[in-house]
Amino acid sequence: MNKNYYAIIMAGGVGSRFWPLSNRAFPKQFHDMLGTGQTLIQKTFQRLNQLIPQENIRVLTNALYKDLVLEQLLQLSPQQVITEPAMRNTAPCILYAALKIRKENPGAVMIVAPSDHWIEDETAFGDDVMKCFEACQHEDILMTLGIPPAFPHTGYGYIQYEKETDTVIKKVIGFTEKPDYEKAKVFVNQGNFLWNSGIFIWSAKSIIAAFEKFQPELYRLFYEGMEVYNTKLESAFIEKYYAGAENISIDYAIMEKAKNVAVLSAHFDWNDMGSWGALYDKLPKDEDENAIINARILTTDASRNIIRTAKDKLVVIEGINDCIVVDKEDVLLICPKAKEQELKKTLEKVKDTFGEHYT
Amino acid sequence: MNKNYYAIIMAGGVGSRFWPLSNRAFPKQFHDMLGTGQTLIQKTFQRLNQLIPQENIRVLTNALYKDLVLEQLLQLSPQQVITEPAMRNTAPCILYAALKIRKENPGAVMIVAPSDHWIEDETAFGDDVMKCFEACQHEDILMTLGIPPAFPHTGYGYIQYEKETDTVIKKVIGFTEKPDYEKAKVFVNQGNFLWNSGIFIWSAKSIIAAFEKFQPELYRLFYEGMEVYNTKLESAFIEKYYAGAENISIDYAIMEKAKNVAVLSAHFDWNDMGSWGALYDKLPKDEDENAIINARILTTDASRNIIRTAKDKLVVIEGINDCIVVDKEDVLLICPKAKEQELKKTLEKVKDTFGEHYT
Repeated sequence: MNKNYYAIIMAGGVGSRFWPLSNRAFPKQFHDMLGTGQTLIQKTFQRLNQLIPQENIRVLTNALYKDLVLEQLLQLSPQQVITEPAMRNTAPCILYAALKIRKENPGAVMIVAPSDHWIEDETAFGDDVMKCFEACQHEDILMTLGIPPAFPHTGYGYIQYEKETDTVIKKVIGFTEKPDYEKAKVFVNQGNFLWNSGIFIWSAKSIIAAFEKFQPELYRLFYEGMEVYNTKLESAFIEKYYAGAENISIDYAIMEKAKNVAVLSAHFDWNDMGSWGALYDKLPKDEDENAIINARILTTDASRNIIRTAKDKLVVIEGINDCIVVDKEDVLLICPKAKEQELKKTLEKVKDTFGEHYT
Repeated sequence: MNKNYYAIIMAGGVGSRFWPLSNRAFPKQFHDMLGTGQTLIQKTFQRLNQLIPQENIRVLTNALYKDLVLEQLLQLSPQQVITEPAMRNTAPCILYAALKIRKENPGAVMIVAPSDHWIEDETAFGDDVMKCFEACQHEDILMTLGIPPAFPHTGYGYIQYEKETDTVIKKVIGFTEKPDYEKAKVFVNQGNFLWNSGIFIWSAKSIIAAFEKFQPELYRLFYEGMEVYNTKLESAFIEKYYAGAENISIDYAIMEKAKNVAVLSAHFDWNDMGSWGALYDKLPKDEDENAIINARILTTDASRNIIRTAKDKLVVIEGINDCIVVDKEDVLLICPKAKEQELKKTLEKVKDTFGEHYT
């Protein structure tokens, strides 16, 4: 494996759209969401470790989750888990990690990948990532993996690329955040739009240069620590300065501003596992189209539900259709799949009514 | 309190209509079904103990539940818990208990009452029972408490009495098991029909004489043990012979055959707690007519449900109406209230599919 290849696994999210299963104390990436015997972050680590030397993989997460990461990824040393002392969205922590990696290896190229996505065809994924790694090693480009849209999904961001390019790696024209349905339909029909997977590939040099150009303040803040990164003095520096960083996403801070953005249309099937509905799509179903995780079920007039419980809990349901049924020790949720977008609001209501206990 | 007054609390049922809360290992009478802080059998004991000396109260139950009874009724000595070595319906165990009581006190009059009924007005209950006790002390009659029917319920048995009698205690003409709706309507309109509460009052002498007359075989079987009852030899005798008794209910064995049956129209509000629906009727409701036991809830478009969980479990439901939602550690049940009569069938299906584990 190429010693210049690095990975940053993003694992700081709370996964509130999967509440009550996922919560602050134990977010979705640390769950075996699909009942495969492995948690999402374990799956992600394994997938990347087929391409990237183990010692070059970093996990970026909130300080709260450091122990969880180390428990689930026994291959990691504590130094490979980079923690944010405060939640500041993706841009600050990516810059911080990139600087640390460049200090260690000035020729580094890296993939930045969410810890909680689902990818079926790992060979195709590997091939695509390798193509990007090779390109980023020789060119000053910021790459992203785009997913050919299967339908006009209104929950994803879209990437528009230049139709004219005849190489597989396309120059990006622009990004559009979650469009409405009509706009999404136009995008899909136009043929040069891809879903934004949130997976990025670039060299340490290129991404740092982009920060210097488009986010000079953020750049200065973190560049200040260059001398202490990867030393014993690093944590004191980060503790002191991290909270001062702007709360800003990598998309907004860099990708939407840079002119050297390129995309590879992915050849693998991808699911962002962004909601119970997305999870439902990926699970095997029974003859009534119910997707069951862990439970044993006995159903009458019950179809198209997603049901998740503790291992071997018996669920007897009648007359429940198109619902999310999630049972945890101290919370039971039953709600229509069509209302899953309101789960975040529900969670707020739970907090307002009962305090943080259940969240 | 009159030393001749005795009570037999019937506590051998499995309560399968309240599955999954009630099950073989822990039937409904041992649950605090209403969330009052007392289990149904504790409530029943307390109610009877206001009329009957503590030492004259017996609990009739399956051998399986002896420990449960003694745990919940600390006032009882082990000798007051009479156990059936095999399930043989109500007639055999009532005869057996009556013989033991007569041996102890030939002048005994007794009430036989289910352990799992709900009675709100305990004063009215006490007055009615006292009237029956007094009548049974002087007359050779078999009494039952009848409940004035509130509506044409098809789930209860009906007692027809002679309209002409001008005393409060009426002579019974006959019993009808659960009628269809049309028949039930006729009964209610006719004015001389009462619901069969399953609460009986008689002297030990009268009920034993009735067994001798109408169930001579059963009588002989148990009379055989008269010498050993209330001695150390009793349990060996019962172990040996009990299983040989016919499986027959007291209604069928005696009440429907005897000519000296009388009824008192009850002055108390009564609920047989025979189903989740019956329980729903008795519980306080929130503004959406949801009846909640133990749970904390957050609802959207959810009404007229009965919801029971472990203490303080949070239940978040949307779009669920008129349902029974019961959550136990290893079973979750969600089904329409209208389908509660099919719960017994569901339970059989669970047994067939998953074995006895969940039942």
